[in-house]
Amino acid sequence: MPVLCKPVVAVPENIVTLDDTLELAKRRHADHPKLKLALRLIRNTGVLKRHTILPIEETLQHPGLEQRNLTYERHAKTRVPPVVEEALKNARLRPSDIDVIIFVSCTGFMMPSLSAWLINSMGFRHDTRQIPIAQLGCAAGGAAINRAHDFCTAHAGSNALIVSCEFCSMCYQPTDHDIGSLLSDGLFGDAVAAAVVRGDGGTGMRLERNGSYLIPDTEDWISYAVKETGFHFQLDKRVPTTMEPLAPVLRDLVASHGWDASDLGFYIIHAGGPRILDDLCRFLDVKPHAFRHSRSTLTEYGNIASAVVLDALRRLFDEGGAEAGESGIIAGFGPGITAEMAVGTWADGASGAAAASRADATFLGS
Amino acid sequence: MPVLCKPVVAVPENIVTLDDTLELAKRRHADHPKLKLALRLIRNTGVLKRHTILPIEETLQHPGLEQRNLTYERHAKTRVPPVVEEALKNARLRPSDIDVIIFVSCTGFMMPSLSAWLINSMGFRHDTRQIPIAQLGCAAGGAAINRAHDFCTAHAGSNALIVSCEFCSMCYQPTDHDIGSLLSDGLFGDAVAAAVVRGDGGTGMRLERNGSYLIPDTEDWISYAVKETGFHFQLDKRVPTTMEPLAPVLRDLVASHGWDASDLGFYIIHAGGPRILDDLCRFLDVKPHAFRHSRSTLTEYGNIASAVVLDALRRLFDEGGAEAGESGIIAGFGPGITAEMAVGTWADGASGAAAASRADATFLGS
Repeated sequence: MPVLCKPVVAVPENIVTLDDTLELAKRRHADHPKLKLALRLIRNTGVLKRHTILPIEETLQHPGLEQRNLTYERHAKTRVPPVVEEALKNARLRPSDIDVIIFVSCTGFMMPSLSAWLINSMGFRHDTRQIPIAQLGCAAGGAAINRAHDFCTAHAGSNALIVSCEFCSMCYQPTDHDIGSLLSDGLFGDAVAAAVVRGDGGTGMRLERNGSYLIPDTEDWISYAVKETGFHFQLDKRVPTTMEPLAPVLRDLVASHGWDASDLGFYIIHAGGPRILDDLCRFLDVKPHAFRHSRSTLTEYGNIASAVVLDALRRLFDEGGAEAGESGIIAGFGPGITAEMAVGTWADGASGAAAASRADATFLGS
Repeated sequence: MPVLCKPVVAVPENIVTLDDTLELAKRRHADHPKLKLALRLIRNTGVLKRHTILPIEETLQHPGLEQRNLTYERHAKTRVPPVVEEALKNARLRPSDIDVIIFVSCTGFMMPSLSAWLINSMGFRHDTRQIPIAQLGCAAGGAAINRAHDFCTAHAGSNALIVSCEFCSMCYQPTDHDIGSLLSDGLFGDAVAAAVVRGDGGTGMRLERNGSYLIPDTEDWISYAVKETGFHFQLDKRVPTTMEPLAPVLRDLVASHGWDASDLGFYIIHAGGPRILDDLCRFLDVKPHAFRHSRSTLTEYGNIASAVVLDALRRLFDEGGAEAGESGIIAGFGPGITAEMAVGTWADGASGAAAASRADATFLGS
């Protein structure tokens, strides 16, 4: 059964602290009738710092969509390869062992997708499949894991590479002054991430079941307006309430696997914002400690869109991982409102030991 | 094994003939130093007419990216549902029987994807998965078929809906005057298409094997420049030469299935342009008649991007389909340069008769 191996996440070198954000908001929106509300919402995010590909002064200047997108592309080509290399090492695989690249990103647009460039420049086989997904936003991290699971199930013994490239700062729109935009200006951060789903062997989360759910009639709660200036993120104030309808869906999916969603070994949850984590914790009746990895992602990096679930999982690995056989869930949420969910157990590599040691021999001999 | 059922294709009511295109090119580019070459290239496409969502006068005026994208969205919401309804009927399924919607479109951008709106407005289950793909361009038709194949293999008994929405006229850029752009202005057309891949039963192409191939170092041969005015299509003059490296790839994929690519029962090939069809015909050593459906798509609709392979397959169905058990191939080509290929045999529904009749009973009883 496919195993999601240890992700690698990298954040850019430019740091924006909570204090920086609050100062900027006060300076740039001094006359805003709801400034106090905006400042309170930003403080409540719990985001203590974010990282951005450009220094803050440059980020705040919109140089036009064409320049923005070229910046996105340049930084993607610089920042993605190192995390891909490390993710392959974590899975003890070489580029030529990969059968599909699932590339998720909602903060820039390239055609062909970056996956084509990765294949050409990093030694992947030219028959590697490409699945580029842009329109699932923050839910795309979970979707990528689930499509990798499906692919490895459909093609026995194959391996999938997931790449997430989210430069949310490239969607900063200086002319958007509504409360949702001001909050977003204080919430999102930049990051790149990669992880391998091994068809056999490997240590990590064994992917056993996946599911998706669209909350009825919430298409306009999280959306992009596409304009001459690029993607304008539109956030409805009802978004934080979405865990009430989603918690039963998570419960049902876990129950269909014979487990109890209140009693899993690990929880990897999209850190869309603090209330999402608080509410889901409460609705699932689990201790806040269970969501510690999502919380630390949010605190240290902000909401890094589709990369959140990969970063939260990376933190679980850094902590030593779960016990072999422990049950867990991954859940990403994003526009739609769409939830992408995966349930499975922790694999320590022993179950697929034969396959793993074959691959290791190849890897070490390379 | 999954079966790709009869696609449904609809083209808009506004018609642009070859003569219209030539007249327009002469009028708008009277001083162009390479006008004669452009006119010759447009004539050589073999495209006798195309269809566009807006009348030609409106199409030629760029109202800005925001307006363009809103037009794309409005027409998508009007034009897609009827083809989806018909495609479901062709597969004798109801919306609630569908487990995944694969939505492919490279000529507009919506987040959330149109798939979310389709689920909400057409009675699909809210746990239907969504796979929106934008960055595979014309190859996305083949990719959608292949990902549907994978999904139905990974989730036994599930059904996939493929939707292609290509309003290429929404990428017309009045300021682009290079030869590639002038040629494209005479080549592409608008269409929407839908098809169901049934996990069991159904009449159509039984999907047995799929593959992808990226021609090394050709990323910039077909690409978008993303600008304030939207997507600018960039076509390299070397694109028509791509069948020489791709023909052996098609041969190998077919051979890995135990067949000879020169001796298949049917060929559903992306009609990127006339030379692509001529060359591939020659390299595969098959009679021009074998590619008749791709040619008539090109002649009557122009290059309708990811919808081409669905339309060519629809034409094969309209002709009566293939003989049960006959072998065939589908191949889509697009940016990367990426080829997405599927091989399989014609299924007349008898092989999955039990499953089909169960579903039929449900369908007819609905």
